[in-house]
Amino acid sequence: MLGSTHGTLTTDSRRARAIACGEHPAQAVHGRPAEAGDLDVSGRPLHADVPDLDRFFRPESVAVIGASDTEGRPNSGITRQLLAWSERVGARFHPVHPTRESVFGIPCAPSVAALPEQVDLAALLVSDPLPLIGELAEAKVKFAVAFASGFAETGAQGAAAQERLAAAVARADGLRLLGPNTNLNAFERFRDDLDGPAIALITQSGHQGRPVFSLQELGIRLSHWAPTGNEADLETADFISYFAERPEVGAIAAYVEGLKDGRAFLLAADRAARRGVPVVAVKVGRTETGARTAASHTGKLTGADAVVDAAMRQYGVIRVDGLDELQDTATLLARARRAPSQGSSAPGPAAPTPAAPRPAVPRPEGVVVYSISGGTGAHFADLATEAGLPLPTLSEAKQAELHQWIPDYLSVANPVDNGGHPVGDWRGPRILDAILDDPAVGVLICPITGPFPPMSDKLAQDLVAAAERTDKLVCVVWGSPVGTEAAYRETLLGSSRVATFRTFANCITAVRAHLDHSRFTAAYRSPFDEAPRTTSPSFRKAQALMRPGQQLSEHAAKQLLRAYGIRVPREQLVTSAAAAVRAASLVGYPVVMKASGASIAHKTELGLVKIGLTSASQIRDAYRELTDIARYEDVSLDGVLVCQMVERGVEMVVGVTHDDLFGPTVTVGLGGVLVEVLRDSAVRVPPFGEDQAHAMLTELRGRALLDGVRGAPPADVDALVEVVLRVQRMALELGDQIAELDINPLMVLPRGQGAVALDALAVCR
Amino acid sequence: MLGSTHGTLTTDSRRARAIACGEHPAQAVHGRPAEAGDLDVSGRPLHADVPDLDRFFRPESVAVIGASDTEGRPNSGITRQLLAWSERVGARFHPVHPTRESVFGIPCAPSVAALPEQVDLAALLVSDPLPLIGELAEAKVKFAVAFASGFAETGAQGAAAQERLAAAVARADGLRLLGPNTNLNAFERFRDDLDGPAIALITQSGHQGRPVFSLQELGIRLSHWAPTGNEADLETADFISYFAERPEVGAIAAYVEGLKDGRAFLLAADRAARRGVPVVAVKVGRTETGARTAASHTGKLTGADAVVDAAMRQYGVIRVDGLDELQDTATLLARARRAPSQGSSAPGPAAPTPAAPRPAVPRPEGVVVYSISGGTGAHFADLATEAGLPLPTLSEAKQAELHQWIPDYLSVANPVDNGGHPVGDWRGPRILDAILDDPAVGVLICPITGPFPPMSDKLAQDLVAAAERTDKLVCVVWGSPVGTEAAYRETLLGSSRVATFRTFANCITAVRAHLDHSRFTAAYRSPFDEAPRTTSPSFRKAQALMRPGQQLSEHAAKQLLRAYGIRVPREQLVTSAAAAVRAASLVGYPVVMKASGASIAHKTELGLVKIGLTSASQIRDAYRELTDIARYEDVSLDGVLVCQMVERGVEMVVGVTHDDLFGPTVTVGLGGVLVEVLRDSAVRVPPFGEDQAHAMLTELRGRALLDGVRGAPPADVDALVEVVLRVQRMALELGDQIAELDINPLMVLPRGQGAVALDALAVCR
Repeated sequence: MLGSTHGTLTTDSRRARAIACGEHPAQAVHGRPAEAGDLDVSGRPLHADVPDLDRFFRPESVAVIGASDTEGRPNSGITRQLLAWSERVGARFHPVHPTRESVFGIPCAPSVAALPEQVDLAALLVSDPLPLIGELAEAKVKFAVAFASGFAETGAQGAAAQERLAAAVARADGLRLLGPNTNLNAFERFRDDLDGPAIALITQSGHQGRPVFSLQELGIRLSHWAPTGNEADLETADFISYFAERPEVGAIAAYVEGLKDGRAFLLAADRAARRGVPVVAVKVGRTETGARTAASHTGKLTGADAVVDAAMRQYGVIRVDGLDELQDTATLLARARRAPSQGSSAPGPAAPTPAAPRPAVPRPEGVVVYSISGGTGAHFADLATEAGLPLPTLSEAKQAELHQWIPDYLSVANPVDNGGHPVGDWRGPRILDAILDDPAVGVLICPITGPFPPMSDKLAQDLVAAAERTDKLVCVVWGSPVGTEAAYRETLLGSSRVATFRTFANCITAVRAHLDHSRFTAAYRSPFDEAPRTTSPSFRKAQALMRPGQQLSEHAAKQLLRAYGIRVPREQLVTSAAAAVRAASLVGYPVVMKASGASIAHKTELGLVKIGLTSASQIRDAYRELTDIARYEDVSLDGVLVCQMVERGVEMVVGVTHDDLFGPTVTVGLGGVLVEVLRDSAVRVPPFGEDQAHAMLTELRGRALLDGVRGAPPADVDALVEVVLRVQRMALELGDQIAELDINPLMVLPRGQGAVALDALAVCR
Repeated sequence: MLGSTHGTLTTDSRRARAIACGEHPAQAVHGRPAEAGDLDVSGRPLHADVPDLDRFFRPESVAVIGASDTEGRPNSGITRQLLAWSERVGARFHPVHPTRESVFGIPCAPSVAALPEQVDLAALLVSDPLPLIGELAEAKVKFAVAFASGFAETGAQGAAAQERLAAAVARADGLRLLGPNTNLNAFERFRDDLDGPAIALITQSGHQGRPVFSLQELGIRLSHWAPTGNEADLETADFISYFAERPEVGAIAAYVEGLKDGRAFLLAADRAARRGVPVVAVKVGRTETGARTAASHTGKLTGADAVVDAAMRQYGVIRVDGLDELQDTATLLARARRAPSQGSSAPGPAAPTPAAPRPAVPRPEGVVVYSISGGTGAHFADLATEAGLPLPTLSEAKQAELHQWIPDYLSVANPVDNGGHPVGDWRGPRILDAILDDPAVGVLICPITGPFPPMSDKLAQDLVAAAERTDKLVCVVWGSPVGTEAAYRETLLGSSRVATFRTFANCITAVRAHLDHSRFTAAYRSPFDEAPRTTSPSFRKAQALMRPGQQLSEHAAKQLLRAYGIRVPREQLVTSAAAAVRAASLVGYPVVMKASGASIAHKTELGLVKIGLTSASQIRDAYRELTDIARYEDVSLDGVLVCQMVERGVEMVVGVTHDDLFGPTVTVGLGGVLVEVLRDSAVRVPPFGEDQAHAMLTELRGRALLDGVRGAPPADVDALVEVVLRVQRMALELGDQIAELDINPLMVLPRGQGAVALDALAVCR
């Protein structure tokens, strides 16, 4: 069986290998050197290297290596399908086989080299594609497809074979490979009689893509299906980038088991975001909670899946769980997409993506629920409101207009309850037009509980007709579980404008995705445009503090923060009680005293922190006690810190954690004991801008604490955001040298007074 | 249009009227006096008053008042449907009309009184049913159905008419009324060719019930449909109680817009819980957040919908959101129900419900995911695990057994990936039987992405056959969006054993509901069996403290707590600085001093609390300051409290809030500033047992705080539970005299040391 678990290798292992070979990591991507200007300060690329896949999906010539027409052999079935597909797309077809004279009556060449012309696409029906790669490259073949399985999906030995294959392809300049362990999905017969913006599909599993492909049977247009298999070379990101620039594509649907290259994914998602093309993805791995072994607090806060989730949100990728949600959300988003503007042809592979063509007037956000039963409308409105959809109350004037046709005792404020009867006559279309005309309304949703012939047939027809007359979205929820009714199967599914759902939940999910994505697109600014390319002056100071493989002392970690302009308390490191007393008078009473050493964690639990010291004698006692405990616990000290005491503020945690797929990530969370329990934190993958730093805070459930509760003053959120951005700079510049960085707590003072890192932990790689 | 918003009146307005009339509130239920022994200490009934609805659903004689056969008149259509239904159920049919000789060839009587026999069911095809009630009662009619609309659903005038109708029915001993504003749903044609335990349906809207009714077209058995309309008399609870005792009913599905009587609902749900009959309900009103004007903290914590949610959970009622979830969950639960044991006929109306007949050996909890594609299995397993379904790893022995038929390189640990090929031959059924044989497995779920003729047809057949051979649950998720395929529509839907879903999410929701409900049923003990019937000795002490219409001072509120055995700090109320100093030495230093007065709220914000006072001079200063502030803020004091200082513990909130539907409720939450932000609380409707008090704590997101974090000792959870139960006792005994009660904070000390109410607020009604 093709298409089960796929063996992609993660970015990190690839980068690690590249570094080990002395290459600059960014140069390893697709084996082609990137221009220096295309790298950020961390050495990661700033632009996607987009392959031109036109000749993959619409080749002029196709070769099938290992072609067969012997009845009953699997390769014969594949050959037949590729032959039929070649005829459909107008490609010249060349069977290749060392011994056969002809296949399906077409003359056979003994090898690729012997072919009469250069071919765009070669399908490899061989169990080991590796020996063919050199020959394909020599023949200037643009794309190869390897169906063979037995690679990384089977274990370590297969993974090694896949690495050899990938390396051979990387050396073969100009050749790109799909697979191995892929299938014929790209070469299926697509319906060409369907209208409107299409869904382009990318899947790592043929089985899992089938339901989306089947949408065509419901009248929903599909333009492409890319079955990426093991992604030895071409990966999901390449197809996202390519599809985002195809004018016929309204939405990209992806089923992802594992991302191969985190950065490549972000860059592809960025291209889609710039052009406003929605990407809807199932990413398996919700329960991959990432049992990490991290010394820091922030490191434990965020699982690997939460990082994927955040990365997707940063670039407007809509993550869904079920394949039915994938179908329904992609369908609505495709239908919501307007015709592309002129001049949107795809740019060359390495050119920077132009800004997205955006609609001049954005569609209004308001959602109106319209039904023939007050109960149905109220039920839908309840769930929609709960899910955060905006249901504006219609204006008095609009309500008066609607009451021309709807009895006065029915509510038309939103939901609009027509009571049923107006649907049966000329009033039905008037009501729909009047609602869709409202400048506050962008989406009309009509839940229909099922066939009720006197009304539902006419209502379905009216909805389809009204959708043709408007640029706004018309959604129907067909509530009957049966699904063979004519109003559903013929009228509603016959429309390329109406989006028809079978459940309230999927309709709500899809409409919310559309509204969120529209808002996201309107506000989107690519963080790659502003990502730093060169190190800051802080970087040199930081270098001096690095101790490879070691944990820094609190004092050194704070110096690191100070190098990046993050405020720390006034403090002095002392090695005698007398020096401590002198330090205290410089720092200012009251003071905090803490043991400082390279390997100390959990100071508080060990009793290695003394707070609120107000006199010289207390300081001398504290000094003695701290050094006694350290001796008793066998903790080696570089001294004792005498620090300014900062009391009034909101305790937060900010840190850097290394993610296997995306590299260094930045986490912010609420500090203190309660949040240790609630794990209230937000994570982002650099690069990100100030907007995302603010968005992180909005994600915190305890966000209100920053706004001030029970009479506490509002905290200095701007200073907190500034710290997050400075920590991001550290992650970018020092990411490969730092395993973990943790400010805990960061005391955020009242507005206008800044934020102070009271304690810090740093572990060098 | 029938069946839009329904005008039910809430418990509270009914109880209020009953009290105003000098009746004991419980006696108002159905207008019949309950036995004294059937009331709890709050005066609420302890047993449901279950009407015998046999003669409603299977009458021997039916009268149609206002019968017509004039072509084109609505009443003619209704008459025709009732005639057809009467013939199907074997009832004698009597048209009634003042002037007609006959209707559809059947002789017509001029009035009910003139009928040749007593009738079981009278359908009222008149615009105003009120004038008929007396006549119906006199004729000993058992049930009347009022289709007329224009009652509470239309506003105040209609509500008054409905109250008059309800009062007339209450006076008409022996007559029960369905409606008004109901419809013909109860009299539809049900499929009688379907097997297995059935779904019984209760809806307040015909439209909203239609999709569940349509399940019959998918082969799912329905036994009843009760369209309760405005519930002037018969209500949802009556039908739940009745259906719970019907042997053919496997699950009850309900669509509820508003509950009429909270207590009646609980008692009905209790009957279903005792018998292990699952009730699945959509209750509209998620966004009815209950903008309450409460002075207390707990009062603001819990919205009206959260109380409904809790009440349902207390009695095992499964609340779902969408109608598709209602369908899918009810279907699975019906199919999960085993054949009822002998002797389960319905007891008489007022008899206490016998304990539920429970299966001797409960079905194991383990869920196995089985698929022909590793990707599909992994995807489903990911989402199922995320949702909390238990997916046990199969034993080594079982895995070895499965590897007899499944290649070794495929994982069969769970999910079981068969790789596809074994499905095509004799191995398919062996694998299914082997999985279903496993003693750890109770549920097998097979996601099929869609038709793949060589495999899916055979797989569907094998699943249907395997389900016939086992008592365990077999679920299929048919992933194709098309739904017209033979494997789905004929094979899978043709089985009365397999539960077939169209989405992963609904399958997971339904299986989780089944597992939760099984666990709930196995552990269920009715709280009504142990509810207090007489007041405790505390009650008399409490009476002396009540001040109707007033807020009590902190000191008085604490005396109230003390009366119910809840610990408060040592404290004295003083009215001079000298007395304060004397009090401090009695209470023990350090002390807290607080202003005490009947109308003080937000003491901390006003500066009316002084903590950590350690000397007589500090106490004198504090006394002066507190009285100065009170004077300045114009707050009237009854004195100053000098209290023992309690520092070490977990701050909680426990309180009583009045709910319009259910009366007094008990809330517990985490205290402190963070939880004010996070609103982390749980609510219960009395009566409830210790198990529920523990369950409340489990619901708290910050529950871990009670277990001890960062080296803090575990808190005295038993003492906390004891306080919750004592507060419940207060709610039961004083519920009608107390508007709000709030312990904030309750300091829960380390294990074995108890819990102390540091502050309290009480408002009398």
